[in-house]
Amino acid sequence: MRDAYHEDLDRLTGQLVEMTRLVGSAISRASTALLDADLVLAESVIVADNAVDTLRDELDRKAMDLLARQQPVASDLRVIVATLKMSADLERMGDLARHVARAARRRFPEPAVPAPLRATIVEMGQVAERLVAKTGSVISSHDVEAALQIERDDDDMDRLHRALFTALLDVSAPYSVEAAIDVTLVSRYYERFADHAVAVARRVVFLVTGQQARELAETP
Amino acid sequence: MRDAYHEDLDRLTGQLVEMTRLVGSAISRASTALLDADLVLAESVIVADNAVDTLRDELDRKAMDLLARQQPVASDLRVIVATLKMSADLERMGDLARHVARAARRRFPEPAVPAPLRATIVEMGQVAERLVAKTGSVISSHDVEAALQIERDDDDMDRLHRALFTALLDVSAPYSVEAAIDVTLVSRYYERFADHAVAVARRVVFLVTGQQARELAETP
Repeated sequence: MRDAYHEDLDRLTGQLVEMTRLVGSAISRASTALLDADLVLAESVIVADNAVDTLRDELDRKAMDLLARQQPVASDLRVIVATLKMSADLERMGDLARHVARAARRRFPEPAVPAPLRATIVEMGQVAERLVAKTGSVISSHDVEAALQIERDDDDMDRLHRALFTALLDVSAPYSVEAAIDVTLVSRYYERFADHAVAVARRVVFLVTGQQARELAETP
Repeated sequence: MRDAYHEDLDRLTGQLVEMTRLVGSAISRASTALLDADLVLAESVIVADNAVDTLRDELDRKAMDLLARQQPVASDLRVIVATLKMSADLERMGDLARHVARAARRRFPEPAVPAPLRATIVEMGQVAERLVAKTGSVISSHDVEAALQIERDDDDMDRLHRALFTALLDVSAPYSVEAAIDVTLVSRYYERFADHAVAVARRVVFLVTGQQARELAETP
């Protein structure tokens, strides 16, 4: 049986996973709100982000409390420090989902994404959901291989981000400046969302191995 | 006289201030590179960002080492946890300066900023420099009043960010989609740079008072 201290550590991990679930739901609903110009859904994503912030505050408080009371060393210390860093990344992912929802709200009742670019944004939303789901699994499983895989999944997001710019700049199908601003910002939000998922995965690698992910990635 | 442990804590603070100096220099030079389409300067900012990343890694290592060896509580613990969070913000500010430099490099030899929007970008660069300089002072001084002031300075950046969008959307002076993309991204980089300066200032408030800045800001 685990002692109370290790149960507290497990609870930290459980709450991080809960954050990935909230953030996954947020980006999924924000994507739908954006693509369907659904104002009610957009508003609900914006409001729900408070729960992510609250969870982050709670996690940070618990992590600091464990540091003060248990004075952990070695891998336990790494778990707690990684938690403090991961909570910041996950909170930011929540903000980015909220930004996508706000972009939907700003243009309502018009859609913020021009029809020819919808398919790419749909795909970005799917990649974002997949990344955050995998991130949640990796936080639970501490599976280093799966964590390193997330970095490769992020390449899909970067490819989609570049594809959007290429499409926007296609002179044969000119877009308005307004559409260019909206799509640039939204695309950037998805890209950053994915970057933070990668950052969380890297921290899992660090807490398991004590090595930075980039050192491991360099070995074949 | 301070004991070795408190000297180590002071050294953490000193290194955070050093990060603000590097990042301040980076955003200043990136702004010049952007406005003057100066490729050599842009490249130098891009390369120099490695030093910021290295300093962050070193700081995090030292902070973890102090946690493990000294098992701090109360305000010392807050200093170390805040350091771990602040190093992430400052590292990100370095990335954002590098992104501004990359925007300059991407359009070289053309300027990335259309002439009528230059004055606003000049001002954004100045606000960014002022914010990071104040952030460095606040990290040293632990002056809560000055830290709360940084939040108000950030309003200037938000105002400039909105002004750029208004200018981009002015139908009487149409901009190209390419210019709209470049300016949207660059403006977003400056705005995020300022947000991270605010986040650092808030962490100083937390480490001094044990309260979140937003709780204090709500009291008159």
